[in-house]
Amino acid sequence: MTHTRTDIFERRESQVRSYCRSLPAIFTSAENATMRDIEGREYIDFLAGCSVLNYGHNDPDMTAALIEHITAGGIAHGLDMYTDTKAEFLRAFERLILQPRGMDYKVMMTGPTGTNAVEAAMKLARKVTGRANIIAFTNGFHGMTLGALAATGNAGKRQGAGGVSLGDVTHMPYEGSLGADVDTLKVMEAMLANPSSGIDAPAAFIVETVQGEGGLNACSAEWLQGVEKLARAHDALLIVDDIQAGCGRTGHYFSFEEMGVTPDMVTQAKSFSGYGLPFAALLIRPEYDIWSPAEHNGTFRGNTHAFVTGRVALEKFWSDESFAVEVRRKGDALRKGLEAVAAHVPGATLKGRGMMRGIDVGSGELADRICAACFERGLIIETSGAHGEVVKVLAPLTIPMEQLEAGLDIIGAAAGVVAGS
Amino acid sequence: MTHTRTDIFERRESQVRSYCRSLPAIFTSAENATMRDIEGREYIDFLAGCSVLNYGHNDPDMTAALIEHITAGGIAHGLDMYTDTKAEFLRAFERLILQPRGMDYKVMMTGPTGTNAVEAAMKLARKVTGRANIIAFTNGFHGMTLGALAATGNAGKRQGAGGVSLGDVTHMPYEGSLGADVDTLKVMEAMLANPSSGIDAPAAFIVETVQGEGGLNACSAEWLQGVEKLARAHDALLIVDDIQAGCGRTGHYFSFEEMGVTPDMVTQAKSFSGYGLPFAALLIRPEYDIWSPAEHNGTFRGNTHAFVTGRVALEKFWSDESFAVEVRRKGDALRKGLEAVAAHVPGATLKGRGMMRGIDVGSGELADRICAACFERGLIIETSGAHGEVVKVLAPLTIPMEQLEAGLDIIGAAAGVVAGS
Amino acid sequence: MTHTRTDIFERRESQVRSYCRSLPAIFTSAENATMRDIEGREYIDFLAGCSVLNYGHNDPDMTAALIEHITAGGIAHGLDMYTDTKAEFLRAFERLILQPRGMDYKVMMTGPTGTNAVEAAMKLARKVTGRANIIAFTNGFHGMTLGALAATGNAGKRQGAGGVSLGDVTHMPYEGSLGADVDTLKVMEAMLANPSSGIDAPAAFIVETVQGEGGLNACSAEWLQGVEKLARAHDALLIVDDIQAGCGRTGHYFSFEEMGVTPDMVTQAKSFSGYGLPFAALLIRPEYDIWSPAEHNGTFRGNTHAFVTGRVALEKFWSDESFAVEVRRKGDALRKGLEAVAAHVPGATLKGRGMMRGIDVGSGELADRICAACFERGLIIETSGAHGEVVKVLAPLTIPMEQLEAGLDIIGAAAGVVAGS
Amino acid sequence: MTHTRTDIFERRESQVRSYCRSLPAIFTSAENATMRDIEGREYIDFLAGCSVLNYGHNDPDMTAALIEHITAGGIAHGLDMYTDTKAEFLRAFERLILQPRGMDYKVMMTGPTGTNAVEAAMKLARKVTGRANIIAFTNGFHGMTLGALAATGNAGKRQGAGGVSLGDVTHMPYEGSLGADVDTLKVMEAMLANPSSGIDAPAAFIVETVQGEGGLNACSAEWLQGVEKLARAHDALLIVDDIQAGCGRTGHYFSFEEMGVTPDMVTQAKSFSGYGLPFAALLIRPEYDIWSPAEHNGTFRGNTHAFVTGRVALEKFWSDESFAVEVRRKGDALRKGLEAVAAHVPGATLKGRGMMRGIDVGSGELADRICAACFERGLIIETSGAHGEVVKVLAPLTIPMEQLEAGLDIIGAAAGVVAGS
Repeated sequence: MTHTRTDIFERRESQVRSYCRSLPAIFTSAENATMRDIEGREYIDFLAGCSVLNYGHNDPDMTAALIEHITAGGIAHGLDMYTDTKAEFLRAFERLILQPRGMDYKVMMTGPTGTNAVEAAMKLARKVTGRANIIAFTNGFHGMTLGALAATGNAGKRQGAGGVSLGDVTHMPYEGSLGADVDTLKVMEAMLANPSSGIDAPAAFIVETVQGEGGLNACSAEWLQGVEKLARAHDALLIVDDIQAGCGRTGHYFSFEEMGVTPDMVTQAKSFSGYGLPFAALLIRPEYDIWSPAEHNGTFRGNTHAFVTGRVALEKFWSDESFAVEVRRKGDALRKGLEAVAAHVPGATLKGRGMMRGIDVGSGELADRICAACFERGLIIETSGAHGEVVKVLAPLTIPMEQLEAGLDIIGAAAGVVAGS
Repeated sequence: MTHTRTDIFERRESQVRSYCRSLPAIFTSAENATMRDIEGREYIDFLAGCSVLNYGHNDPDMTAALIEHITAGGIAHGLDMYTDTKAEFLRAFERLILQPRGMDYKVMMTGPTGTNAVEAAMKLARKVTGRANIIAFTNGFHGMTLGALAATGNAGKRQGAGGVSLGDVTHMPYEGSLGADVDTLKVMEAMLANPSSGIDAPAAFIVETVQGEGGLNACSAEWLQGVEKLARAHDALLIVDDIQAGCGRTGHYFSFEEMGVTPDMVTQAKSFSGYGLPFAALLIRPEYDIWSPAEHNGTFRGNTHAFVTGRVALEKFWSDESFAVEVRRKGDALRKGLEAVAAHVPGATLKGRGMMRGIDVGSGELADRICAACFERGLIIETSGAHGEVVKVLAPLTIPMEQLEAGLDIIGAAAGVVAGS
Repeated sequence: MTHTRTDIFERRESQVRSYCRSLPAIFTSAENATMRDIEGREYIDFLAGCSVLNYGHNDPDMTAALIEHITAGGIAHGLDMYTDTKAEFLRAFERLILQPRGMDYKVMMTGPTGTNAVEAAMKLARKVTGRANIIAFTNGFHGMTLGALAATGNAGKRQGAGGVSLGDVTHMPYEGSLGADVDTLKVMEAMLANPSSGIDAPAAFIVETVQGEGGLNACSAEWLQGVEKLARAHDALLIVDDIQAGCGRTGHYFSFEEMGVTPDMVTQAKSFSGYGLPFAALLIRPEYDIWSPAEHNGTFRGNTHAFVTGRVALEKFWSDESFAVEVRRKGDALRKGLEAVAAHVPGATLKGRGMMRGIDVGSGELADRICAACFERGLIIETSGAHGEVVKVLAPLTIPMEQLEAGLDIIGAAAGVVAGS
Repeated sequence: MTHTRTDIFERRESQVRSYCRSLPAIFTSAENATMRDIEGREYIDFLAGCSVLNYGHNDPDMTAALIEHITAGGIAHGLDMYTDTKAEFLRAFERLILQPRGMDYKVMMTGPTGTNAVEAAMKLARKVTGRANIIAFTNGFHGMTLGALAATGNAGKRQGAGGVSLGDVTHMPYEGSLGADVDTLKVMEAMLANPSSGIDAPAAFIVETVQGEGGLNACSAEWLQGVEKLARAHDALLIVDDIQAGCGRTGHYFSFEEMGVTPDMVTQAKSFSGYGLPFAALLIRPEYDIWSPAEHNGTFRGNTHAFVTGRVALEKFWSDESFAVEVRRKGDALRKGLEAVAAHVPGATLKGRGMMRGIDVGSGELADRICAACFERGLIIETSGAHGEVVKVLAPLTIPMEQLEAGLDIIGAAAGVVAGS
């Protein structure tokens, strides 16, 4: 890549930019799990927009529907006015997602970012309970705006607040974070049962079932049930932040399906539009939908193009069980592939669940070198974890099996070279 | 409208929805300043997505470019990786906006909502100065996430925080807010010059040149210069929140052009994509672009479709002065039209600037009735202000003159009927 | 003074010590308005422990009662258990202070410091109203613990918080602080009447009628009534912090007597024990005394020795009007004396009320030099104000008239020499 | 007791009063461990002002010195000016406490309450480190002003804040608080070592070696060393709050002596004056004494009467080891006596250390009934713990052995009757 090609970014884009630093190509087009750069080089995409592109790049059915909508002069932006496309999206969501699962939620169209859905959830939980304190977990990632940032564990992100106190959140240990021999549920239970613990009565617990940014830590159903039980015992709400792990990533539409819990609120974003378009929502148990009109609002709440593609995504992938079954099958293949890779790296361990897995290689420095070696070999892949120590696979769920295996082979080769060096 | 048509919204959409309550149609398509509903009825749009649609609904050139991009398999979502479309957008922004105005800013692609750009600005100002306090103004509106909400004046919105303290912001009086005989600059000057005032040294002032939500209060150039002078005197940054008043709304690309100030940061959102797509950015003076990579991030930072339409918007409307001149001409027509309307309402006064104007009719109840009467007559229009007392016109800047006049006639008729009743 | 005498302080006492720096003698005994140092030198005391010693040093009747109490084995410390001395103090306070003034308050024995009484008042106001925001005033001083510090204006003191946010307080302009031509009541009224001002509904206003540390700014009865009216209009409580200005300092027991207001809470400390012993209380309108037992507590709440001396102070000085009349007479003499002094200093203005007066000499540097010149001449006196620009007289109210005049003569001489140099 | 005797309290003292509710006598005099009420009844004092009266009521030597000081017209109140009595106190503290223990601290005379010393410590730790977060422990009690209250665990006390956020403190589990099988040091270590835990880097740890209010939990030397090690590892300060456990209560002057740690700051209050007079101080390692003059101040900082009695206490009890040895001997007797008592109560366990011990009887209701039965039998005793479940003995350290045993017999009798009922 010549300097002249990226000079506009260096000259005009803020220093805050990040992925382009480790993936320094200029991308021009993409299709399902394949990206192309300006020099015509092709890459396998094991990043998928950090789980935004669960259905791959530019799904042809969504493309067709979106072009049809645009061509017909359909609404592109309508604040939160009623539109036919929003109605159709909501009907599809009700019919294909909520009803088959026996779930009853109101859908709040928040600003079209995950952090906005999280902020809405935190605000509403406080309003419902009259309590300020929200319990979040170590290694949790919930967003960058001040309310959500307070619930985010990462010290580097927290420093971005510029010294302002990130209050009204208590950080508790996620399953496994205190070592194998400490029962984190018991720790929380003891702290919360003690009226002199200094932990104020919580409005809510906010939890990811798999911590995407935090290192692909996947909690067990028993632990998640324990968190719900604690929430119920203390009259607190349970918020599942399903932004990264939802929309099929774990092999079910919601990551918490079959885990035996009933969240009071669920955040949705990333793959919610199906196509990579900004879109986010908060699912709210009807009894807690006590907002006054416009009490939380936002210019782009709802995004009409996203209603179109999001509806197609639901109809195409969630009309029956076949897609979920396929994802689970690929998740198994991914696990096996990563086991083979792990054999190249002394001490490496597997992390994650479903199609959201990775290898903890022990250090961020090593993980970075493996990812860089992958990129040289045509694979887009990134790290995760408190120290960036996890090589993380977030391929489109629609990736063809051969391409998944090809990508895994590249990781294996890269790991072999790097770990062997 | 029959019940069966809106039942999905009543059943599944959160109570927080708002515009659909006063504008109860189901919209299906739109073109420039005209919207159509599911029953084929047409409306003149004097709301324009609250200034999101400065270039009207579905501009044909943007439509064409967007369809071409999608058809070609262009990137829809790429995190903050380099793409050809982002490069082209940045080049256009540099060539058509920054260079002609002699402005030097870095562009930070924040999450695609105005509140996210505001949060980024507040975080960065605190990081740059090592101070926590930010001065915001009465009737200011900056967003709904906790950091931006702290800078927002509206009590109803603030209550949505659920009782959490909205700290580290001092609210100062906007020009005119203390009555004609009190010089708000002097008040601020006295408070800030006094080391025992209890007002901690500010990191920044955040100000709108026209307060869109706050009642279309438009500050004078002298006052804005006074705010900048105060900021400089106290080593604080000047942030202009140009989300609603920018992108041509006042007759210039930036609302503060020709007002004699040089902001340290400028927020952009709403009409920044040109097409109604979620998109936001923070312009930063290069010396203050001290972010660490990813210190503020977000899944949808940058929005590739918006890069495409946003570039076309810049090329089409900002390659020369003609569009700005046309907007200023329409702004004058709008002012004259509103003066005629105001004659129908005893005590009514004009508010605003450029194509961002309205009539303060003295009470929110009256303003609501006028807007409802407009809607019955086929005009989409909304209120603004601390008491919702301002009937606000935010028509697309591209509205044909006859349609602008037709809309104004409707307001006149509605005001006559309502005020006369 | 030789080095050997103060070496223990330099070696063992924290750098935070302050008065000893400008008044570098080692004091050994005192009587009424006279202090003696270790070398036998006598000083006139125009500081009186910052208004702690309104009845002078070592009043003989309090001395006798205290020695009798100690000799008899009376309780020295009893937490908040019932004691005969506490009963007698309360009976005297009821009979001599409350009943003659038609006042009905409960007495809360807080920790024996002013800041503790202020914290109790702020906590209770928040508990009563369910609101967090408390309105304090520019140049107000209310204490150094975090809650009270948030209400204190002085930037140097606030920096002692070490960067922690001092939240939940809004600082409003005190009478006169915005210049002669700005009506601060109107400014507050406008800010509070505006539901989009960003000023959250207040739990209380906390105000000093004369700002002791803030520069001896004395508000008018009209202004104080205006503050009360604002409080009533916004369902907020009125707290008068009478720690420095109370206990007779202004010529009445309470500084707000005859100013036409009825505070909901009044803080008492400094001269409350009459003898310089640590003692503080919060007076609470009975309907707001909604504390749970021990909800605010403290080891030294109430101080039994102080009950003894405090009772004697009430009986000796407040059984009839004669003391108050005498104080007002001395206050007039003080005013006249300071007018004469002010003639020596170009631009000097008089500040304060009653026996709480001073001269604003325009700069802290000049005021420091005058005070130092006074100390050389045997007068203990200190500065006040945001810039330390006020030479402040806080003589014991019991000072003989000749000694008051002698002290004033010293200030005159010092000012003449310093201002003439 | 007749109604007429307490009516003044019911009529005029705030509802916040507490000890007088469970100990409803009117006390008039006291001597060492014996209190007398207005009806001439005598009580053994096992409360000792919550450890304020370690040297008993009205020690004759302190009485004599105090009367001599008062009679001689010694300074009663001198702000923080130099006095002979302060010099003598500091010299005694240096000679008898610091030097024999090889300790090097500056003494900061804070406001004369424990909470004020704690606030000063927290402020200074934040100033020294530039960090906001302070780690406090479950069941810790540090005071009622907002800064100290944030570090206090008790929910009832915290509610007194009236809904204001108690921020910038992280509450960690005290030794044993998570059950016998969880190593609380490991929990903390894991949380602090994880840069994504959401626990911001701490300015300091504040810890009591025996939690007086929190249930007489006594930590081990190993645990305290572990806390110090954690503090050092994270560049945080170690603050020992020795307000209740210090001044000899545990059998050493400082409670942490012989525990192998070197705190950076130590708070002193309660028995620091020796006589029950309000007095508090903060001991600061010289390198951290970076206060600006008056950056933390207070009217009653230092209390001259307390300098006199405090000096006598040091000279009388700490000139050699004999007192400490005696206290340890009594502590053993206390332990044995409580073991005998515990036999009366099924499931009861012993708590505490030195002369700071109690019995956890399993419920607050039972503990209250035992204490009430003790009071009927002439013993003043109170409960402690998160549920008030610990019957707590805080007798004067100077109590004669027979009286200690008599008191223990009363507890035994009361427990027998109550637990048997």
